[in-house]
Amino acid sequence: MNDGMTEAGACGATRAVDIWVVGSIGIDDIATPVESRRNVLGGSVTYACAAASFFARVGAVGIVGSDFPEAFVARYRSFGIDLTGLQRAPGPTFRWSGEYAADFINRRTIRTELGVFADFKPELPDAFRSAPYVLLGNIGPDLQEHVLNQACGAQFVIADTMDLWITIAREALERVISRVDLLMLNDGEARLLTGRHNLRECAAAILAMGPRYVVIKKGEHGAQLFSKAGLAIIPAYPVDAVADPTGAGDTFAGGFLGHLARSGRTDEAAIRTSLLYGATVASFGVEAFSLERLERLTLSEIEARLTELRQMMMIS
Amino acid sequence: MNDGMTEAGACGATRAVDIWVVGSIGIDDIATPVESRRNVLGGSVTYACAAASFFARVGAVGIVGSDFPEAFVARYRSFGIDLTGLQRAPGPTFRWSGEYAADFINRRTIRTELGVFADFKPELPDAFRSAPYVLLGNIGPDLQEHVLNQACGAQFVIADTMDLWITIAREALERVISRVDLLMLNDGEARLLTGRHNLRECAAAILAMGPRYVVIKKGEHGAQLFSKAGLAIIPAYPVDAVADPTGAGDTFAGGFLGHLARSGRTDEAAIRTSLLYGATVASFGVEAFSLERLERLTLSEIEARLTELRQMMMIS
Repeated sequence: MNDGMTEAGACGATRAVDIWVVGSIGIDDIATPVESRRNVLGGSVTYACAAASFFARVGAVGIVGSDFPEAFVARYRSFGIDLTGLQRAPGPTFRWSGEYAADFINRRTIRTELGVFADFKPELPDAFRSAPYVLLGNIGPDLQEHVLNQACGAQFVIADTMDLWITIAREALERVISRVDLLMLNDGEARLLTGRHNLRECAAAILAMGPRYVVIKKGEHGAQLFSKAGLAIIPAYPVDAVADPTGAGDTFAGGFLGHLARSGRTDEAAIRTSLLYGATVASFGVEAFSLERLERLTLSEIEARLTELRQMMMIS
Repeated sequence: MNDGMTEAGACGATRAVDIWVVGSIGIDDIATPVESRRNVLGGSVTYACAAASFFARVGAVGIVGSDFPEAFVARYRSFGIDLTGLQRAPGPTFRWSGEYAADFINRRTIRTELGVFADFKPELPDAFRSAPYVLLGNIGPDLQEHVLNQACGAQFVIADTMDLWITIAREALERVISRVDLLMLNDGEARLLTGRHNLRECAAAILAMGPRYVVIKKGEHGAQLFSKAGLAIIPAYPVDAVADPTGAGDTFAGGFLGHLARSGRTDEAAIRTSLLYGATVASFGVEAFSLERLERLTLSEIEARLTELRQMMMIS
């Protein structure tokens, strides 16, 4: 963080983190056309916190069950993630299993078992309350709202969402959207939310709901950043061999917000640059299952690939 | 053209054009979710020549039937297209009719009537033979080869192709590919041609067939330029309202090669810049049916949108 933001935030409590992330923590079974893996660490908090940790101090807000392996907790710690906001409850951890089609993009959910996640009531640790950067990961919008109400130092809030909430919790979702600085969603979700097809029209409709920025993710085709001022095109890094795309959107969001926190800025130029960082970290993440690639990733690898990506975009 | 290339080419004859384009000329019936139009001027030569004409002197090599309206010939002339290579034959002009899905991307062919195109034997006018830039538009690879054999001044040859030729004329297509400097095709065609899914692998396989460059088109998601040196990402301009995507690939190719001819260069930096011009001209082309948008397009509109596109790509 730059010096403009003091360590003791506006809310009194000492600030332990620059960013906090709320969302799901899960144990996943994943089948791709190439490989299948069982019982891998997953969830939006997992991917986003790991990605953000390369750039800033990040705290996790989530829930796990009594079956959650200590080895997974150790993996969070290896990224330096603050686990003060991690709740443990009796019962099974949230589980998801899914299968990818031959294109490594389309997927179907085989099973979802909510476990302790069904009764998740996120509570923000005091030491997180004054953190300036907030990522409301993909959980029910009522929970996003509940935890956002506990934040008092938030200066830049982003929310992710998914088709399920657009369909079943639209009112709460609209309340959340009206309160965030940036909404991140994929192209299909943007169309579902707005009833429009053209992404520029989708973005205009979402901006009219309140946020200053909308990022529409298009997977391997990159992303677009919309604001009232216009549009920015963010490319995806063309990955040689995708092993598992699960969590790519969360990794993108986490890498983005991590870098934005490192910059200490919230202006559009910083947002554009940080989105390129998010895209770069996400491109590493999909090269292996779970956090396996991020665990052996270095900041200098990120910088090298970012330079490569910039060169791919270079037009004289 | 720059001064490095003399007007009298290597082949003796005076050079009338900088570029020639061979391909189809057709009369199309097109249905989109918004509007349907009958008897519109179409074909790869039509779109590519019109797009190239903004930047360089371009000649058309194609065939039309006795029913081809004089008004369509006049439209070619309004772009300054050299029609020395336009054959007229007794019988009907090639006709295509197609219908677009709700996404304005997927389409089905309703009817194809070859007419005089069935016996097309392209002949290159003497005044075209020494032209340095050549676009082999989407026609049978045997015809592409036949006409390429007549070119003696070609310094940069690009070929377009389609799934049909990959399936039914693979040997001839491979011969053509081995002789061109740049192959342009869409992502689905690249996968069909190479049997690979990952576009980087597709491109590597195509480069191994001979060309120095491969451009893989991804429609609204832009394009990628591959060479042995690496990869460049070319964005698409996000069009507000697509009226008719027919011919977008040909417009892209024509605008690209036209600008490359204007630059007088064939190096990768010039190719990247010219691809951005191609993308920009194509983004105008789809705003109306047939050549209707290109007919009222100005070079300063192209430059303004190109500047806008560059700003969308700008990351500090």
